[in-house]
Amino acid sequence: MLTLYTAPGSCSRASHIALEESGLNFEVRLVDFARGDQQQPAFLALNPKGRVPALATDLGILTESPAILAYIAALAPSGQLAPVDPFAFARMQAFNLYLASTVHVAHAHGRRASRWSDDAAAQASMAAKVTQNMRDCFALIEADLAQKCGGDWVMGDPYSVADPYLFTFSAWLEGDGVDIAAFPRVQAHYERMASRPAVVRALQAEAALSV
Amino acid sequence: MLTLYTAPGSCSRASHIALEESGLNFEVRLVDFARGDQQQPAFLALNPKGRVPALATDLGILTESPAILAYIAALAPSGQLAPVDPFAFARMQAFNLYLASTVHVAHAHGRRASRWSDDAAAQASMAAKVTQNMRDCFALIEADLAQKCGGDWVMGDPYSVADPYLFTFSAWLEGDGVDIAAFPRVQAHYERMASRPAVVRALQAEAALSV
Ligand SMILES: N[C@@H](CCC(=O)N[C@@H](CS)C(=O)NCC(=O)O)C(=O)O
Ligand SMILES: N[C@@H](CCC(=O)N[C@@H](CS)C(=O)NCC(=O)O)C(=O)O
Repeated sequence: MLTLYTAPGSCSRASHIALEESGLNFEVRLVDFARGDQQQPAFLALNPKGRVPALATDLGILTESPAILAYIAALAPSGQLAPVDPFAFARMQAFNLYLASTVHVAHAHGRRASRWSDDAAAQASMAAKVTQNMRDCFALIEADLAQKCGGDWVMGDPYSVADPYLFTFSAWLEGDGVDIAAFPRVQAHYERMASRPAVVRALQAEAALSV
Repeated sequence: MLTLYTAPGSCSRASHIALEESGLNFEVRLVDFARGDQQQPAFLALNPKGRVPALATDLGILTESPAILAYIAALAPSGQLAPVDPFAFARMQAFNLYLASTVHVAHAHGRRASRWSDDAAAQASMAAKVTQNMRDCFALIEADLAQKCGGDWVMGDPYSVADPYLFTFSAWLEGDGVDIAAFPRVQAHYERMASRPAVVRALQAEAALSV
């Protein structure tokens, strides 16, 4: 059995969508940030980092979005959620790594600046740069998508776990003060994703978790 | 042919060591940070992110350390640089992802704080928290290594690309004001790594690049 520990709207949304796409049997458990669940002993025993996503499997716990996404793809039918060719797979991982190590980090300097400074003025100064940094990141992503012309998805064609991961970050743009319309390929991708049945199901399940 | 774009002492050291371990044919090219090579048009054409490592292959350019490391492992003889079992592989990727998305980011707030704020006081405040954040990260890594008792390497046994990646960050501790001796398993790992012939060769090649 697979159990995804998730917080609605957070980066764990990508893993949730990937599970919906995969056809695998899974359940989701809410980690309620408002209640501080991620710092409770019960959750820290699962993931000492105190973050979502965490995927409980029969073999143990897995953390870190790109690792979880690639593992879900490995469990799903071959080729359905990740390219089989090693170089194409590595390119997908590189895309996901940029989201995890640069874009996610750029975004986190808004609400989570206290990770990197204890000083309120410094935190405010970091938050003030989020819009610019997210815009720079998405300009790079837009250019990357342009090079993969001829396909509907991040890797061109076919669909892969890079798609729900990008979708998750695209949804953060508005809150970060960035108009998604400035990035037409990203916007078209976002809309294409939003109409996939697996995405609709994941967002409905998220909404049901939060009430 | 594989060409690694690298800067001595930077995170690209991990990919350099992995190439030395792999037995693959490769060459390295210096990206001189002091000269600002990473922002020159020639390099930006290869990697618009302006960062190392970048691996030029016959199929195209690959970026992002954990993606490059896993690709080198995929090219090397099966099982030599990464576990073959999908869950064990995912655990290795999760370890590498933590280094890329949290530990590397914690470290970068020292010398690269200008990525996240334009304000000099805020940058100084971020730099002041680096020691604490790196210590917290390595406490988590030390506990993780303790759970994998019975092996000399990050994944327990066998050796994998997680080892040169951890080795690279361990070398940053002193500069970040953290005494590696506070983490006995990390320190033992560092020393074990330092005596591997592939590591010795990579460090010698780095030194030759810098002169
Ligand atoms: N590198 C991790 C980052 C995970 C992460 O930062 N998750 C956020 C939600 S988007 C979180 O759990 N934050 C809770 C907190 O900081 O307390 C990944 O890619 O999965
Ligand atoms: N997420 C990337 C980060 C690469 C990165 O930040 N590299 C640093 C060296 S450790 C760099 O190129 N810095 C040059 C600069 O910031 O100008 C990875 O894991 O490879």
